[in-house]
Amino acid sequence: MSLIRAGDLAMLVPEKGRPFIQHLQPGKELQTHRGSIHHDDLIAIPWGSQVKTHLDARFLVLEPTLHDLLLRIRRRSQIVFPKDIGYILLRLSVGPGKTVIEAGTGSGAMTTAFAWAVGPTGKVISYDRREDMISLARENLTRIALEDRVVFRNHDVIDGFEEEAAEALFLDLPKAHLYLSQVQSALRSGASFGAILPTTNQVSQLLAELEQHAFALVDVCELSLRYYKTIPERLRPVDRMVAHTGYLVFARSVLPAAEEEAAIETDPDPEHSE
Amino acid sequence: MSLIRAGDLAMLVPEKGRPFIQHLQPGKELQTHRGSIHHDDLIAIPWGSQVKTHLDARFLVLEPTLHDLLLRIRRRSQIVFPKDIGYILLRLSVGPGKTVIEAGTGSGAMTTAFAWAVGPTGKVISYDRREDMISLARENLTRIALEDRVVFRNHDVIDGFEEEAAEALFLDLPKAHLYLSQVQSALRSGASFGAILPTTNQVSQLLAELEQHAFALVDVCELSLRYYKTIPERLRPVDRMVAHTGYLVFARSVLPAAEEEAAIETDPDPEHSE
Amino acid sequence: MSLIRAGDLAMLVPEKGRPFIQHLQPGKELQTHRGSIHHDDLIAIPWGSQVKTHLDARFLVLEPTLHDLLLRIRRRSQIVFPKDIGYILLRLSVGPGKTVIEAGTGSGAMTTAFAWAVGPTGKVISYDRREDMISLARENLTRIALEDRVVFRNHDVIDGFEEEAAEALFLDLPKAHLYLSQVQSALRSGASFGAILPTTNQVSQLLAELEQHAFALVDVCELSLRYYKTIPERLRPVDRMVAHTGYLVFARSVLPAAEEEAAIETDPDPEHSE
Amino acid sequence: MSLIRAGDLAMLVPEKGRPFIQHLQPGKELQTHRGSIHHDDLIAIPWGSQVKTHLDARFLVLEPTLHDLLLRIRRRSQIVFPKDIGYILLRLSVGPGKTVIEAGTGSGAMTTAFAWAVGPTGKVISYDRREDMISLARENLTRIALEDRVVFRNHDVIDGFEEEAAEALFLDLPKAHLYLSQVQSALRSGASFGAILPTTNQVSQLLAELEQHAFALVDVCELSLRYYKTIPERLRPVDRMVAHTGYLVFARSVLPAAEEEAAIETDPDPEHSE
Repeated sequence: MSLIRAGDLAMLVPEKGRPFIQHLQPGKELQTHRGSIHHDDLIAIPWGSQVKTHLDARFLVLEPTLHDLLLRIRRRSQIVFPKDIGYILLRLSVGPGKTVIEAGTGSGAMTTAFAWAVGPTGKVISYDRREDMISLARENLTRIALEDRVVFRNHDVIDGFEEEAAEALFLDLPKAHLYLSQVQSALRSGASFGAILPTTNQVSQLLAELEQHAFALVDVCELSLRYYKTIPERLRPVDRMVAHTGYLVFARSVLPAAEEEAAIETDPDPEHSE
Repeated sequence: MSLIRAGDLAMLVPEKGRPFIQHLQPGKELQTHRGSIHHDDLIAIPWGSQVKTHLDARFLVLEPTLHDLLLRIRRRSQIVFPKDIGYILLRLSVGPGKTVIEAGTGSGAMTTAFAWAVGPTGKVISYDRREDMISLARENLTRIALEDRVVFRNHDVIDGFEEEAAEALFLDLPKAHLYLSQVQSALRSGASFGAILPTTNQVSQLLAELEQHAFALVDVCELSLRYYKTIPERLRPVDRMVAHTGYLVFARSVLPAAEEEAAIETDPDPEHSE
Repeated sequence: MSLIRAGDLAMLVPEKGRPFIQHLQPGKELQTHRGSIHHDDLIAIPWGSQVKTHLDARFLVLEPTLHDLLLRIRRRSQIVFPKDIGYILLRLSVGPGKTVIEAGTGSGAMTTAFAWAVGPTGKVISYDRREDMISLARENLTRIALEDRVVFRNHDVIDGFEEEAAEALFLDLPKAHLYLSQVQSALRSGASFGAILPTTNQVSQLLAELEQHAFALVDVCELSLRYYKTIPERLRPVDRMVAHTGYLVFARSVLPAAEEEAAIETDPDPEHSE
Repeated sequence: MSLIRAGDLAMLVPEKGRPFIQHLQPGKELQTHRGSIHHDDLIAIPWGSQVKTHLDARFLVLEPTLHDLLLRIRRRSQIVFPKDIGYILLRLSVGPGKTVIEAGTGSGAMTTAFAWAVGPTGKVISYDRREDMISLARENLTRIALEDRVVFRNHDVIDGFEEEAAEALFLDLPKAHLYLSQVQSALRSGASFGAILPTTNQVSQLLAELEQHAFALVDVCELSLRYYKTIPERLRPVDRMVAHTGYLVFARSVLPAAEEEAAIETDPDPEHSE
């Protein structure tokens, strides 16, 4: 039986409504409108236990997954959604020990996922020209003890990135198409580039600019996530769903072709070809 | 400029058709029906370069991403698709240093992603009752040098898992609903459970069984991925897409409620509630 | 210039919120919380005009399309959605001069579409065991002057349909699988059958029963409709959409095969094969 | 029992592969690579019967639905798909007795649906600047005896439509945005306009032009159709589906606002608001 310890990050899930995520500290207390719970009453009980507030409301105590953390990010901007984040990690190959650059930081959802995925031996460099967004993201990262994997840079990336030879770079900026020269200076040749863009016009602009720079394997896609009601004898999708978060664009930065040769193209639909 | 070294895993992308993934070794040669390339001609050139076969066919040389590796898995069974894998990693919180159990191994696509995501300090335990599938998966993992992060077990999980107190467990088995007692014995309380199932009937069966065991936060969902043609002035989805891979089911293993109390339920649509 | 006449059905569209559909009658008045409009002020002006209430709120005056009528149905039950209705008309071939049977009537959305599509020379027979639903549907049909194309029957179809040799029959009943013998007695051989069902369990049940009866060309499908924001320079889907209305099942009633011969099957995905 | 008569349009469905649609005539014969069937052997047997070729291959004999007719259109161009056609009929309110204009004719799929839906008392005016497409469409319509409901006009609509005060107009032309003045001259005020466009760039262009003309209630949407395998105990979507046919744009032609007043806008997502 795995016991909860002081210092652990715990998610308290009520019977209805949103969970709370807390760093457990002796002497502290979680206040909810359903009553309060002493952190001391959580420490040394098993994960997966049910606890009650002083008003007798039940909460389930769980370790938050990355998905849970992302859904509870404090935000002042649209965040990248988990369905997109999981796929972005794969496409950019952001895993243990990697270094990844992103701009803009925003509320820090993508930053959180990158910091979580690169592990203690990796590094995230996160740019935003707005200091308030960096502060918010830093708070979000600090709350879950991932802030020391992230270097925040309060710069406008129009002035370029400080890095060179990075392995992956992700843009969540409205005018992503303006920064491709800067992106290429920051990436080592062959590295992975990704962007998320809400509108088709932005995608067209970015595609046009990618053609003007040395990028290959350009891909555009869109992910939909549909939940189902979980009643076994009445299985059916929920009534409403998110219709759109953003279009995802991926490409590889390559060496400029020696002569007049065009960039090499591949099947636009890899899963298609399987 | 980052140079290719002997021993690196390289992806050679032709102008048309499927890429080749190779471990580069001095003296070796890649044979394709478009001509051959000496590995020695790749070593010490920059990533992102273009090379030519002796028949003058062009190839782009890139480091494969996790996505590239997954698409090139040698398979004798349906594999879990990248769109689903990215999301599964997030939902099960499989990241650096984690230990995760899966059954069955199949061709090893999910195994590859788990091994990649847990990093050198994590561990994957992969069960399959078919020895031939384990052999195939082991070959796939060995080719990309991730095999030492995986313990293969050639057992039928109906007889139980050898592990206890695992942090996450994933089932890709047609009769997932038969193994929930075994799953719970293998997981520590509070741990994450996931499954992929092709049919709605299987989902209903699994949901019914989950209700009979101590699981909470049960979720069912489905992801769609649609690619777009990448011509900026004629942006539009491709003509055809994958219509279905599988339904994803997620849940948390919890302590049985002390008395008559039901498991705590949450919003079936977390992104809904944002 | 086409002028509005007394007796016309007019849709008054406000700048924000839901439109009103009215039969225009001299002396009458439309009351809205944005002010009132005299019907006499609408009669003899052109369709497509803007008018103002006595509180200066603007309304656009249009003839309602079938789509408009369906969205304004007064309802006490889930209605069939327009995206599904258009496709059902095509699949059941319900057009001018046809006779179609449906059960249950519900609020009368499907009834409205059938009555509209069959024209003055066609006929709709609509069954519901609930008298209150028939009353509501009749009111809805009367409001738009289509009631004389519909025969309402306040019967439970478990007792059979009164008709024989009908050309098309549509079921919007939770237990559609219970009525297939009754359906076949009501249809002439070769006729079209359709059903809408919210859950996958219901679809499985209906499919199993269709196999026990003489039906061919069985098809199951699902339609999704996604709206886009209409700003030309920021084209993108809306944020949220309907995730599910129902699964559509179609089949043809055929003569039982003379001997042991199975029903003829066809490609389950006709558009697939194009 | 409803018997097949000489002169009927019959669909012969083989056990595998595409159906044949034939006008039955005494003395004629259907030749297939599975053997031949004399029309005389079909006349006076019931609809829904099974028949055999002289090579003993089985065929099912059914009346074709509109859906069947559309799938069997002979084509030399991309046709509008049934899923879109059903919805277009609803949105443009093309039903019994209506007059509708379309451009271009193409292979005549949309023409077929319009001619079918307006019935013997309605009329379709179909424009195409290519004489060969009009010939093909006319053949398609003649084969199913709907040609006398259609007036084909071999004109480029850049020169305007001959009609005035039409009730509905549909454009299936790559540069739909160029013809809005011509469209408005052809429509009576308040009438319904629709278009189908494959790319997002075309949609943006059309939306921009609609803003420059007196149109209201502008809507953009996209329909997806997913088929399911029909095995009751293994219900699941088919493996692959059509990812895209086209974006649908709808609007109402209105009187120009007297002064500086903007066109009235409505909820971009009517089903949203239900």
